[in-house]
Amino acid sequence: MTTNKPAFEFWFDFTSTYSFLASQRIVELAAKAGAPITWRPFLLGVVLRECGWDGPPIANNPRKGAYMWRDLERQARQRGHGFTKPSNFPRHSVLANRVALIAANEGWAESFVPRTFAVNFIDDLEIAEPEVLARIIAACGHDHPDAVLARAQSEDNKAALKANTDEASARGIFGAPSFLIGNELFWGDDRLEAALEWWRAA
Amino acid sequence: MTTNKPAFEFWFDFTSTYSFLASQRIVELAAKAGAPITWRPFLLGVVLRECGWDGPPIANNPRKGAYMWRDLERQARQRGHGFTKPSNFPRHSVLANRVALIAANEGWAESFVPRTFAVNFIDDLEIAEPEVLARIIAACGHDHPDAVLARAQSEDNKAALKANTDEASARGIFGAPSFLIGNELFWGDDRLEAALEWWRAA
Repeated sequence: MTTNKPAFEFWFDFTSTYSFLASQRIVELAAKAGAPITWRPFLLGVVLRECGWDGPPIANNPRKGAYMWRDLERQARQRGHGFTKPSNFPRHSVLANRVALIAANEGWAESFVPRTFAVNFIDDLEIAEPEVLARIIAACGHDHPDAVLARAQSEDNKAALKANTDEASARGIFGAPSFLIGNELFWGDDRLEAALEWWRAA
Repeated sequence: MTTNKPAFEFWFDFTSTYSFLASQRIVELAAKAGAPITWRPFLLGVVLRECGWDGPPIANNPRKGAYMWRDLERQARQRGHGFTKPSNFPRHSVLANRVALIAANEGWAESFVPRTFAVNFIDDLEIAEPEVLARIIAACGHDHPDAVLARAQSEDNKAALKANTDEASARGIFGAPSFLIGNELFWGDDRLEAALEWWRAA
């Protein structure tokens, strides 16, 4: 029973390269650990600006940028899934993040989030376009993707994503992916196992 | 036989927190993998400035700084060794890096490097002080630590450490620890296993 355990929270933004890596394995690893995932989309760009960055951490560091793309390629290959350097990076992710919040509230984030990351970082399609998102939503089993997109764009849902972002900052998040178990913060795809172990022992 | 293999190069600076983590396990892991370590001290501060940073990556990011110290504490505990947040951070590491280069050339880096990292990040002693380094050098089996320090401060050795630093930049290094196998770069303690696996398959 997990009744008294804190939630296992996965904080992500669809622009985030290492959130992509985490998204392709978190469902399987969390299931093995018995941890139900609480899906927490937020606006990474806002948080990075608060931390003094004007763009992705690699923006002004060509060496680190070159390394990141190579590292992602190697990691994806080792894990047996695809990776394509997006032809547009970082993509605008606000709409996709809003849909993820709807999906989280309605219980289908486990289907939507990994697919949408894969569309951005494997298929190299423009996740800022409503048509692209509508196809993903349909693939998640929804007959009326436009209705989902309309819910995503409601004022209430926009405010809820902003509230998630404020909460991310208040709880010390400075990047993505992040995992929170109560106040215990783990940053980066490389810490997914450690975060799940922390949850298990909590 | 490893005759035709590229070297397994460990690039580090004694100021670097995650190089400390790597230093406490690299001898054991490399031995298991059959990889002889090529010890490559360099001046991380110079490389970070070239990459547009004025100090440690956490200097202007309090959230990331708070996270790093907590992460180091957790990782050290999980691995069963100590960790103390240094009372002075970052410590001046030029002299210690120069001694490491001597040790690498003379074949006793495996003894000196892990000890010196431990003195900085477990014992919280001032590795910028020659007396502290002299005690470490003596613990490595040298009867005349002052002679070693004199060799470390020779113009040739100073130039050699600068050359290492230039080479780090030329080969794309932007942080520490870094591992190089030929042109293949791995960054961070978290990539030590992947780097050894790359070397094994090379």
